[in-house]
Amino acid sequence: MTATMAIILMGLLSILAALVFNWLVARIPATGGVSDEGHAEAMVRVSNAIREGAMTFLMRQYRYMAVFIVIFAILVWALVDTQFYGFPYSAASFVVGAVISILAGYIGMRAATMGNVRTTAAAQRSLGRAFRVAFNSGAVMGFGLVGLALLGLVTTYLVLNLLMGDASQEHIMEALAGFGLGGSSIALFARVGGGIFTKAADVAADLVGKIEENIPEDDPRNPAVIADNVGDNVGDIAGMGADLFGSIAESTCAALLIGAVSWQIASDPAALLYPVLITAVGVPISLVCTLLARASTPGAIETSLKLVLVVSTVLMAVVMGFVTLRVMPETFDIRGATYTNVGVYMCVLAGLVSGMLIGVTTEIYTSNRWPAVRAVARAAETGAATNIIYGLALGYRSSLFPVLFLAITVYIGYQFAGMYGIAVASLGMLGTIPIGLTIDAFGPVADNAGGIAQMSGMGENVRRRTDALDSAGNTTAAIGKGFAIGSAALTSLALFSAFLVRADVTALNILKPSVIPFLFVGALLPFTFTAMTMRSVGSAALDMIREVRRQFASIPGLRETYMYTEQAVDAMVEDGTIPTDRVIRVRQQMIDVAYSSADALVEAYKETIGPNRFIAPEEDLRRHVNLGFQPGTPDYRRCVDISTRASLREMIAPGAQVILTPIVVGFLFGPEPLAGLLVASLVTGVVLAISSANSGGAWDNAKKYIEAGRLGGKGSETHKAAVVGDTVGDPLKDTSGPSLNILIKLQAIISLVFAPFFEHSLHWLS
Amino acid sequence: MTATMAIILMGLLSILAALVFNWLVARIPATGGVSDEGHAEAMVRVSNAIREGAMTFLMRQYRYMAVFIVIFAILVWALVDTQFYGFPYSAASFVVGAVISILAGYIGMRAATMGNVRTTAAAQRSLGRAFRVAFNSGAVMGFGLVGLALLGLVTTYLVLNLLMGDASQEHIMEALAGFGLGGSSIALFARVGGGIFTKAADVAADLVGKIEENIPEDDPRNPAVIADNVGDNVGDIAGMGADLFGSIAESTCAALLIGAVSWQIASDPAALLYPVLITAVGVPISLVCTLLARASTPGAIETSLKLVLVVSTVLMAVVMGFVTLRVMPETFDIRGATYTNVGVYMCVLAGLVSGMLIGVTTEIYTSNRWPAVRAVARAAETGAATNIIYGLALGYRSSLFPVLFLAITVYIGYQFAGMYGIAVASLGMLGTIPIGLTIDAFGPVADNAGGIAQMSGMGENVRRRTDALDSAGNTTAAIGKGFAIGSAALTSLALFSAFLVRADVTALNILKPSVIPFLFVGALLPFTFTAMTMRSVGSAALDMIREVRRQFASIPGLRETYMYTEQAVDAMVEDGTIPTDRVIRVRQQMIDVAYSSADALVEAYKETIGPNRFIAPEEDLRRHVNLGFQPGTPDYRRCVDISTRASLREMIAPGAQVILTPIVVGFLFGPEPLAGLLVASLVTGVVLAISSANSGGAWDNAKKYIEAGRLGGKGSETHKAAVVGDTVGDPLKDTSGPSLNILIKLQAIISLVFAPFFEHSLHWLS
Repeated sequence: MTATMAIILMGLLSILAALVFNWLVARIPATGGVSDEGHAEAMVRVSNAIREGAMTFLMRQYRYMAVFIVIFAILVWALVDTQFYGFPYSAASFVVGAVISILAGYIGMRAATMGNVRTTAAAQRSLGRAFRVAFNSGAVMGFGLVGLALLGLVTTYLVLNLLMGDASQEHIMEALAGFGLGGSSIALFARVGGGIFTKAADVAADLVGKIEENIPEDDPRNPAVIADNVGDNVGDIAGMGADLFGSIAESTCAALLIGAVSWQIASDPAALLYPVLITAVGVPISLVCTLLARASTPGAIETSLKLVLVVSTVLMAVVMGFVTLRVMPETFDIRGATYTNVGVYMCVLAGLVSGMLIGVTTEIYTSNRWPAVRAVARAAETGAATNIIYGLALGYRSSLFPVLFLAITVYIGYQFAGMYGIAVASLGMLGTIPIGLTIDAFGPVADNAGGIAQMSGMGENVRRRTDALDSAGNTTAAIGKGFAIGSAALTSLALFSAFLVRADVTALNILKPSVIPFLFVGALLPFTFTAMTMRSVGSAALDMIREVRRQFASIPGLRETYMYTEQAVDAMVEDGTIPTDRVIRVRQQMIDVAYSSADALVEAYKETIGPNRFIAPEEDLRRHVNLGFQPGTPDYRRCVDISTRASLREMIAPGAQVILTPIVVGFLFGPEPLAGLLVASLVTGVVLAISSANSGGAWDNAKKYIEAGRLGGKGSETHKAAVVGDTVGDPLKDTSGPSLNILIKLQAIISLVFAPFFEHSLHWLS
Repeated sequence: MTATMAIILMGLLSILAALVFNWLVARIPATGGVSDEGHAEAMVRVSNAIREGAMTFLMRQYRYMAVFIVIFAILVWALVDTQFYGFPYSAASFVVGAVISILAGYIGMRAATMGNVRTTAAAQRSLGRAFRVAFNSGAVMGFGLVGLALLGLVTTYLVLNLLMGDASQEHIMEALAGFGLGGSSIALFARVGGGIFTKAADVAADLVGKIEENIPEDDPRNPAVIADNVGDNVGDIAGMGADLFGSIAESTCAALLIGAVSWQIASDPAALLYPVLITAVGVPISLVCTLLARASTPGAIETSLKLVLVVSTVLMAVVMGFVTLRVMPETFDIRGATYTNVGVYMCVLAGLVSGMLIGVTTEIYTSNRWPAVRAVARAAETGAATNIIYGLALGYRSSLFPVLFLAITVYIGYQFAGMYGIAVASLGMLGTIPIGLTIDAFGPVADNAGGIAQMSGMGENVRRRTDALDSAGNTTAAIGKGFAIGSAALTSLALFSAFLVRADVTALNILKPSVIPFLFVGALLPFTFTAMTMRSVGSAALDMIREVRRQFASIPGLRETYMYTEQAVDAMVEDGTIPTDRVIRVRQQMIDVAYSSADALVEAYKETIGPNRFIAPEEDLRRHVNLGFQPGTPDYRRCVDISTRASLREMIAPGAQVILTPIVVGFLFGPEPLAGLLVASLVTGVVLAISSANSGGAWDNAKKYIEAGRLGGKGSETHKAAVVGDTVGDPLKDTSGPSLNILIKLQAIISLVFAPFFEHSLHWLS
């Protein structure tokens, strides 16, 4: 069996697995096992709204993406392809990469928005079932994305091979790099745009809902609440998926390109495609490991997920040993240095191990079972300021071990297989990605399931189960975030190496007058980019806040519906007249009955809660009814639309920085200054990304630690201080931090793809 | 006249000027023109306490410094001198540099603690007089420090020249580099230790005083209040002074060392000492410009200070043109490249201009006359979290222009005179340092003068004048901070270049496996260092808080004295019974009279404020008196001592990181990996330092903007949110940010001095 065939088979296996997981989720009815019609109705209403919102976002985003893809493809063609191949090979690869990334994201979103409500439904029966449903929903994305990546890469390669005929493998791989650029460009939209969307909706829902209108969290009458839930999918499913799709595509392209420089590798088709094989090997291993994902008690969920991660990593390490020794030539030369296949295996191993270690340290700094986060929580006792100071310091400190692990991996990579080693280490870290993505997507599905349970008024029982899933999801999400940054760093370094190969830079002497100033500029970029994305969240949130306020002010009955029914329902719950898990249903009934006439409304209230407890001013009520008052429903769609528009508008500036900087610097000053800029951006960006993500994660979990009843519990001054930290951390951990992954990768791949264009550099300064 | 003589003359002129300025301040009686004895007494009491506290801090710090200097001198001797010169030349230079830096700091502190109370006294008469007193106090430090630096450098050079006999100029300059190391080591204590001291005292005074005990700010009965005032001197006078002394000493040593490599420069004594001449030329120019410092209206103060800065810069640019063309050889070679004296002049110019520009942009991002800070203030309207987010984003964004200016300066430096150019640009930026330091020291003197006026109950009139001085001081302090970071960056780069020269690294290829991992580590260090210093402030503050609480709990009568007299005095002020500017005196009288017996106390109260208004519980009062109750006075000295101990203890960890990292990395891995680490630390550290300083400055001034009555004014929710931002910013702008200057410089000079030791490197990894 040839390597190509093996890859195609594994790609198909991955797609097939995704289809099976999808079927496993889809066959469960959305409200299966929910006996109460009121709950079932509410569940369907809420989950449809979330799904519809998510699709609205995607569709609008696609329009922007389409325009971007066309323009950028023309740019790639004009600046790169025209000079070298005549035919737009790079541009075409770019389009294919972009389209496949979009497709992968779409599949992930569909599965997640289908899985969330079914997880809620399954939680009605047992925790174990709910866990499997959420896990399977995540697996659709995990295996679907990797399958598409494998098939897309290998097909594009084969087609290019066919079309480009006599071209050397090196040239073919250069054209293939466009595929990575495509994937990474979509990740820009998904991670940066998505990150802005999710936090803008979150902030607006909290600020107007909870603070101004005094509505509880996740209340269906808050116009921004659906956008908030959509945001979880947009940011954590589509964003994370596109980010990691980009990492795979880019690392693979980088490894292929560097490998093609070696004649021993270029002349052996199996060795040439070895980088793709790494990902292909991960498919069956990950698939087997999904069988280990079983849990019936809350404590077992996290253990199970971690077990899956560890076992898949160990299996991967073993299998890759055989594959590497079999496929790679015993010795091979790259640019004068000789390496061995054993060395290549060491690189894969270094990537695998450091990925795990980075995940572990991320957890230590962001989980409230460890002392670091508890210290942040205790700092909230002396106020919001100390909470912020401790959280910032934690983030800065937390980058120590992950960065050291990365540095060691980089050293091992370089030492054992030169630049090729870095790219291979990166692919090693991404080796178990189907399972990694599954677990990443599991989190937001569980989170959404909890939201749906809350909004459709399910009982304590169900909430407790979805909460257990959500909590495990939070821990693994932190691990996933650390992992995404680590792989982005290695990917970026791999791309950087490939860029140097393509631009024919053999030594980068930073003592040149033309290089050292660009080290300063490079270190600067992650900071200005972070500043832009933080402000973007602010502006987008402002748009949303305006819209939510407008709806409350202009939709007749929206605010009143809330006020009056809520007062009555609250009173009844307090009395014990209705059980907690009937709240939604009774509320709906009250609205339906009472608003038929003012008298009926007033009577219904008085009857259930007694005349003295009736708080809503009777005159107001009657006046509204006489004016033709109807219970108002919020316009969720408009909120989603506003957030979508705002997020897309607000990503233009940071996106432009990322895309234009390497092109402009490369053209004006040449490849060496650009290389200086890239490497400084990379090392600074990684540290800043880890700091941002971990500060945010720590504040979040410090707040949750307090909400669990410690240090005064919910509502205490300490809690209020912790909420400030959490709010500051939100854009850091969900927008700026993850967006830095894109910054470092996209800058590097743009440099790689546009490298031929820089040969026409004006070479200012040198 | 030889260059040596010119330098010595200018050094003596500078010292003479300092003596004259000192006389101008000292001849004013501390309470001159204050007619009210109560005020005069209070002023003397408060200012003596501040001075005594400052000296306590210095004396204790000196003990630590002495131990450190001895140990480190032995280390320098053992690892460096033994291998090369036999005699401890480097170690001796190190000791001289350290001692002179200590002396300069001592002089600055004495002048400042003498000037503050005299500024208050002069403010009794007119704003113009008060301005001159504060300015002159600053000038003592400005000229004294530069004079000592010049004389110290040139004397050490001459002595080394004499002792080392046949050694080449290059070797002599290598030994002289110890002088820079000495200056920089003291800066570690002054900036990091001082930074921790000042913020610990500030936080403790605010938290226990204002929040727990509900005492107003700057109240003499708060045990931490003197420590807080001492802190202003310790951080902003001694810290800033030592930082800039280090910059001059280090840049000069770097320039001398690199210049000595060129035979044309080494063979011409005047050209060789050209780097010292730059600073020498600044003395007469600065001295002339001090005559321009005159202002009689609040608006004129800032204008006058800025005029002084601009005029001195322009004069410096002109004079340096003549000096450079006269002194420097028309062409000279350094490591194969040929440069011209015109090129050297361009470097000086680049440093001068970019120093000014960095100052200007710093002001734009930190003054509340500009929109950036106002946006941060408005963000406080939606709460503390948005205030923090906007402030952080502002800091990140604000590094753009300063870093670009630095990058351009670095390019010009390298382009026109290679590594020598960087060092010369750095000295150019520091050219007008006597006037720069004067203005820097002016700020804390004015700030202290305001505190003394408040604590001794001076009238509105005096307060308004000291406030006007303080406000101008804040603006120029921001400029000074930007300037200190900029010069630290160039200094560090100059040292880095000198290190490469000494370690004989001609090209630093970062693509080596042994270099690139250290770029990651280098980028990491500023973050871990910042985390450590931020936490240090927290721990030191905790010690202080405990002490203040202990004093309130255990000093008999301290809390009661406050409570009872304050209630009475407040009531009388409200009634109009006593005018505001008599508060201190009446309060003292009440304490003296009333506590003689319980009855007298109760009667005195009832008499002045009427029986119904008497709030203190009569029984409590009588009981206290029967128990031998005496009015308690806080133990200021103990607070100062605690803060001193805590700050010195807490600087050990960050200090150890800075000192040990380069030595360990250089020894284990060799000069090239160390160079990679240094350059990554440098570029990242600069951006982080600017961000930290500007975020902190912006929050501070956003709060002041609101306190001036806008957006709801003092006491509003918006103000409370802004206070959170200000508190977060305090350690960032006054501890972590400025300490990063030391990080980047000290790491570089340690590498430079220990370079010969690294020749015995184990060369792991390579």
